[in-house]
Amino acid sequence: MGQISFARGIPAPELLPVEELADCAKAALERDGRTILNYGPAGGYEPLRAWIGERHGVDPARVVVTNGSLQGLAFLAGRLVQGGRVVVELPTYDRPLKLLAELGAEVVGIPVDDEGLDVDALEAELRNGGQASFLYTIPTFQNPSGRTLSTERRRRLVELAREHELLIIEDDPYGLIRYEGTAGPTLFELGGADVVYSSSFSKTIAPGARVGYLVLPERLVGPVTGAATATYITPSLVSEATVYEFLRRGLFEPNLARVRAGLRERRDAMLAALERDLVGAARWSRPDGGYFLWLELGDELDAVELLRRAEQEGVTYVPGVDFGGPASSLRLAFSFVDAAAISDGIARIAALVPASASASI
Amino acid sequence: MGQISFARGIPAPELLPVEELADCAKAALERDGRTILNYGPAGGYEPLRAWIGERHGVDPARVVVTNGSLQGLAFLAGRLVQGGRVVVELPTYDRPLKLLAELGAEVVGIPVDDEGLDVDALEAELRNGGQASFLYTIPTFQNPSGRTLSTERRRRLVELAREHELLIIEDDPYGLIRYEGTAGPTLFELGGADVVYSSSFSKTIAPGARVGYLVLPERLVGPVTGAATATYITPSLVSEATVYEFLRRGLFEPNLARVRAGLRERRDAMLAALERDLVGAARWSRPDGGYFLWLELGDELDAVELLRRAEQEGVTYVPGVDFGGPASSLRLAFSFVDAAAISDGIARIAALVPASASASI
Repeated sequence: MGQISFARGIPAPELLPVEELADCAKAALERDGRTILNYGPAGGYEPLRAWIGERHGVDPARVVVTNGSLQGLAFLAGRLVQGGRVVVELPTYDRPLKLLAELGAEVVGIPVDDEGLDVDALEAELRNGGQASFLYTIPTFQNPSGRTLSTERRRRLVELAREHELLIIEDDPYGLIRYEGTAGPTLFELGGADVVYSSSFSKTIAPGARVGYLVLPERLVGPVTGAATATYITPSLVSEATVYEFLRRGLFEPNLARVRAGLRERRDAMLAALERDLVGAARWSRPDGGYFLWLELGDELDAVELLRRAEQEGVTYVPGVDFGGPASSLRLAFSFVDAAAISDGIARIAALVPASASASI
Repeated sequence: MGQISFARGIPAPELLPVEELADCAKAALERDGRTILNYGPAGGYEPLRAWIGERHGVDPARVVVTNGSLQGLAFLAGRLVQGGRVVVELPTYDRPLKLLAELGAEVVGIPVDDEGLDVDALEAELRNGGQASFLYTIPTFQNPSGRTLSTERRRRLVELAREHELLIIEDDPYGLIRYEGTAGPTLFELGGADVVYSSSFSKTIAPGARVGYLVLPERLVGPVTGAATATYITPSLVSEATVYEFLRRGLFEPNLARVRAGLRERRDAMLAALERDLVGAARWSRPDGGYFLWLELGDELDAVELLRRAEQEGVTYVPGVDFGGPASSLRLAFSFVDAAAISDGIARIAALVPASASASI
């Protein structure tokens, strides 16, 4: 068997709805090509904005569709940071960390436990640390940890943010990729205009479409669409109209069911392999959805050093330090390879973890 | 007749190859959907990079495809400016001016005459003014003036830039939209790795595809693809693969012929209407290609004030001051409305220009 990647947080190619999107692209262009193929609104394809607005119960004017959601975050952070402080949970998605460093932000990390962001720690930070431009958080099936913020903490977080006039940016690309359990409210549902909601169709339809979006408080719509105009005039309407056609045809929910089933099988395979091979030698999160699982080895093990050896055995992952996590942690993506490869890959990693590690767990 | 827009530098919808692109999108997704619909290289869809590389005689690794060419310029300027000086021709395309202002660049303007950028003025500036990060220029069918840099000046410009170690960014979206005359060499063809070449398929296929590209000197490939990764991970591969399919099927040249014919008719209609209505009262450029024509009224006329009255008569344009031009100048786009509307629109403008203006021309 070749290289087994637990590093790539991307969907297995067989889960992409290729034939359906091919038909949707053609149909969208045939129906509305003269609009789609010309310059258009910086905020994105109007029918898609309307669909998203309806889904989230907001005026479509508050929806800005971007070429992937990271692009939207880049616009927003570029307008909000201005050299100031930004609060994030740690570990967190590495790309926003890089973006914030590039913008010269002072990044303050708040720890995460099994119930998600530690709201007590955030409260202490807000009382002592002064004003921040925003909190960036992924409360559901977090990248990299797979953890989900509990509903009780969500309520406290929204209250706390309101009290301290802290804008929350809720990044929620995985929320709909749920395998079990019931979804609690999003921060956006609890906090309304005090929360920027960010999501995308990368995990629910296809990443290569590059269609993400922001639901913004009114005061931020002008600055963000201004940044979009100044950067690319109009986002990729061909992709947006293709996604819209997919939604319009009622293909979204059936596709979600298919994606959930395919990914659940992979998650189950990874949890089973971990139970089989690493009980006592490591701890791991048990996500109800998303792409990722977080593994903590014994403190004396360094995940970067282990990766070097794992790669020699044909398996890769991303060390936790890349996400601001401890040296002994690592992120395992179960989204890309199939269940058999997952089982094999975990066995290869486990063979490299000394049994003595168990003492420290 | 409704509003006649000479303001919008966008193609007439009837010139967009809608049916062909609908077929191409479907075929591209059916053939290569699993690649197109997943995350991919930050530099763009590999077959398209290879096509562009071959066209320009460079290693495809030097080609970075972006979501429209302005996005590429934003990446490049973001890496190069660092608060320094940038040289532009004046008047010039307004969006780069805004981008440069946003980046805190000190912008130095060099005048343009009927043969394009005044190379003597540039030489004087380079001798006196010190180092600049780059020169941004649109040498062929310039936006906004429609003017083209003469071949002799191109040679002098490339020599001068080499002597002063000034990087040239050649923005060339209109070069292939030529109605008559023979194309001289591009600055890139003359200057090689001292020139960044920027172009797009917005004018040759469709703007809504948002597919632009840079041909970069090797040393700039890493910084620009790094910025792309940090901003959107992967550009819109659906659009890029659709454009590639269009090229692959041999539709590019026939489409260009059709676009040229449609736009030439519009340019001819505008020149004829100007000859009919404004001889003696204004001067204008006579572009051999592109979308735009530059009009200079008598010095006592203000194009912003005239626009207010023109809009009441149902016709719009962009005042020259928006591009760094004189108060009495304006940009007329002949790309969007048809020949009959062009004739009517020019008549409406001419009716607002006092005959006495002719004295100053």
